Amino acid sequence: MIHQRAAILAIGDELTLGQTVDTNSAWISDQLTAMGIVPVEHVTVPDSLEALARVLRRLSRDVELVIATGGLGPTLDDLTRQAVAMACDDSLVEDRLSLIQIEAYFAGRGRPMPELNRVQARRPARAIALSNEVGTAPGLFATILQNSRSCDVFCLPGPPGEMHPMFRRQVLPRLRPSPGRTVRTRVLHCYGIGESHLATLLGPLMTRDQNPLVGTTASGGVVSCRIRYDGTLPAIEADVRLDEIEGRVRRLAGAYLFSDVSPSLAVAVISLLRTRNETLSVVESCTGGLLGAMLTDVPGASSVFVGGLLTYTNEAKVSLAGVDSSLFEAGAPGAVSREVVTAMARGGLERLGSTHALAISGIAGPGGGSAPKPVGTVFIARASAGDDHVDCREFRMTGDRAAVRDWAAKSALAMLRLHLIGQSETRLLREV
Amino acid sequence: MIHQRAAILAIGDELTLGQTVDTNSAWISDQLTAMGIVPVEHVTVPDSLEALARVLRRLSRDVELVIATGGLGPTLDDLTRQAVAMACDDSLVEDRLSLIQIEAYFAGRGRPMPELNRVQARRPARAIALSNEVGTAPGLFATILQNSRSCDVFCLPGPPGEMHPMFRRQVLPRLRPSPGRTVRTRVLHCYGIGESHLATLLGPLMTRDQNPLVGTTASGGVVSCRIRYDGTLPAIEADVRLDEIEGRVRRLAGAYLFSDVSPSLAVAVISLLRTRNETLSVVESCTGGLLGAMLTDVPGASSVFVGGLLTYTNEAKVSLAGVDSSLFEAGAPGAVSREVVTAMARGGLERLGSTHALAISGIAGPGGGSAPKPVGTVFIARASAGDDHVDCREFRMTGDRAAVRDWAAKSALAMLRLHLIGQSETRLLREV
Repeated sequence: MIHQRAAILAIGDELTLGQTVDTNSAWISDQLTAMGIVPVEHVTVPDSLEALARVLRRLSRDVELVIATGGLGPTLDDLTRQAVAMACDDSLVEDRLSLIQIEAYFAGRGRPMPELNRVQARRPARAIALSNEVGTAPGLFATILQNSRSCDVFCLPGPPGEMHPMFRRQVLPRLRPSPGRTVRTRVLHCYGIGESHLATLLGPLMTRDQNPLVGTTASGGVVSCRIRYDGTLPAIEADVRLDEIEGRVRRLAGAYLFSDVSPSLAVAVISLLRTRNETLSVVESCTGGLLGAMLTDVPGASSVFVGGLLTYTNEAKVSLAGVDSSLFEAGAPGAVSREVVTAMARGGLERLGSTHALAISGIAGPGGGSAPKPVGTVFIARASAGDDHVDCREFRMTGDRAAVRDWAAKSALAMLRLHLIGQSETRLLREV
Repeated sequence: MIHQRAAILAIGDELTLGQTVDTNSAWISDQLTAMGIVPVEHVTVPDSLEALARVLRRLSRDVELVIATGGLGPTLDDLTRQAVAMACDDSLVEDRLSLIQIEAYFAGRGRPMPELNRVQARRPARAIALSNEVGTAPGLFATILQNSRSCDVFCLPGPPGEMHPMFRRQVLPRLRPSPGRTVRTRVLHCYGIGESHLATLLGPLMTRDQNPLVGTTASGGVVSCRIRYDGTLPAIEADVRLDEIEGRVRRLAGAYLFSDVSPSLAVAVISLLRTRNETLSVVESCTGGLLGAMLTDVPGASSVFVGGLLTYTNEAKVSLAGVDSSLFEAGAPGAVSREVVTAMARGGLERLGSTHALAISGIAGPGGGSAPKPVGTVFIARASAGDDHVDCREFRMTGDRAAVRDWAAKSALAMLRLHLIGQSETRLLREV
């Protein structure tokens, strides 16, 4: 069977009641779209056997592929197994291999399997269990037949950490996109430029009837430019077209374009530092560790990241980073200032002995703002060994506390990146 | 008409293609649930007139209320106006007041209204336009009649900054929850206990035919227990039932239950420290700032969080936290050990002068593991001023790098919390 159209199903009261935001459906759709299977609908239903079986039957009349997440846990409100059996007119049986894997999961943790988890080994008799290498919930692969139509249904666990590897290893190899169709996507990630500004630069490249089609999306300050070919050309010819469009986007986006691989600025910075054999330290006030966390989120960060100082209080800025305490006296510049953040960067460089140091001090809100320094005011400094000049910039971030902190940490990484590629004069969005 | 059951509809190619995560549906569901209207389904459809009209007709047969977001912009792929007209068998007319408001929006920005935006003033003849105080897209309030059933449909703009105020001012006053129905929800957040273990403890409380009904969900190690009453009792009597069930859940979950307000352990720890007038510092190796970031994500963290040391390299552990360098020599315990993490916690306490210090050192992976210390091995220590005893625990976390780091930071917070509530002897999940 060919999988042309897909529906994504998310299962759980916590989703329909609005307690949790569903990120799985977008992730799965992105994966399917990239290979030429078109997601035509997302549905979310509560932990109700009837609702679940009914939606499975309805979707299986409309599409050739359903990918569902959630409801595979061991508790009584986990009903996906039963619902699939009901939709397939099948009965549940115990899958021996799944049971062994679940028992092994607990044995590996030095515990016997709780009897409750035994239910996770159950599957519809004609379905295939998909092994879970990370957690206890096996997935399911079943086919629903209705009036001579057939629809493949994959059920995956809800936690993304279990869902992603199961999708990659067990679902991807079983997908059958249309053979005559070529879909190729490239993504170029930019930071420091507004989405509408980039769209204006891209101009006619973004017209809806183009193929490849160029589109932009913005998330947390990162503006991602997608170039997508969807047609009947052989892949090699489609790639030639993509190369040409990508070249034009690169020229227009200039220094703001930081990656065609990862939307993480930390990945880009670490990679640049590694090739130069240079190191980095951080001194954080309002971000309180977020910059360090972004850097160390990247595997292998230890080859360039030395460490840092979280100088949340003025006292910590003095004692840890050696900032002159007179800067905090009445009438002096104060914690959120060019002078203090410059001293913090110099202090980091000296105390941690790194090639570069990034320092951040700002007002993340919701409180703490004033007329001259409203919430969102952030100073960021970059100091580098053997260079007396410290690059210090003032920003006015918008949004809530989390947004201000996120943009502050990313803008610090962007400043270092611009320095490393010799584009320090490039101004960043929200710079004052 | 009474609004008993609701469906939430999200509209847009960027959603079905997985380029954007839909947060609107969860937000709206949360609002509806709080007032006793039960969201029974979320649906997301692409920018397709046929798909949109079809799903509106289907949903209007199942529920009394549909709240839709998106597709109200000025471009050719914004089709919500037409789809609602089609579903209502109505024609589009220009709404004079909407046109004036859109023109005023542009006039306020010193620009004439682009002709493109004129289409945003159109509405189905029998629908009501909902004014937008933030952007150009008016909303719609229409009623779809089918075989003697009627369904109210509200269409709101997609950007949350426009949708939220329109929902509050224009939709909320028009909602009619069932007068005879009472829906009340409580959520209790636990950490350090597995979901299936908690479910075993809760036992018959989780049977599906209970009212109040108890359910659990797990996200990033936090197991949230939801207690939901949905019935015909007066609110005050429903609350008595909820009190009783909540009391039983609290007794069964014991020290693992940390909040009935927020799923953030940092919020709970900061609140405990604030009432005791105590302070905290952190010394982080494998988490690289994540623990500090979690703490400073909480507004007002500055009243208890002093700062921290990111000691990613051995050299930084020695120079910043004063760890004895002999601990890193060949044959010595090494960076990921009880000895080093204990010294890190003591160093943090001394260097930062806080009441408590939390230190973390571990192997987050994917590389760096060994047979005696596999990936996921994490040592966490809590030191407190005036107490020679340092609580040091070894964990074996599972999952990928992000999961190991996330659990490490949360387990550190949980250790401090257990100490603050006098339950230090309680073991945490994944503790060796």
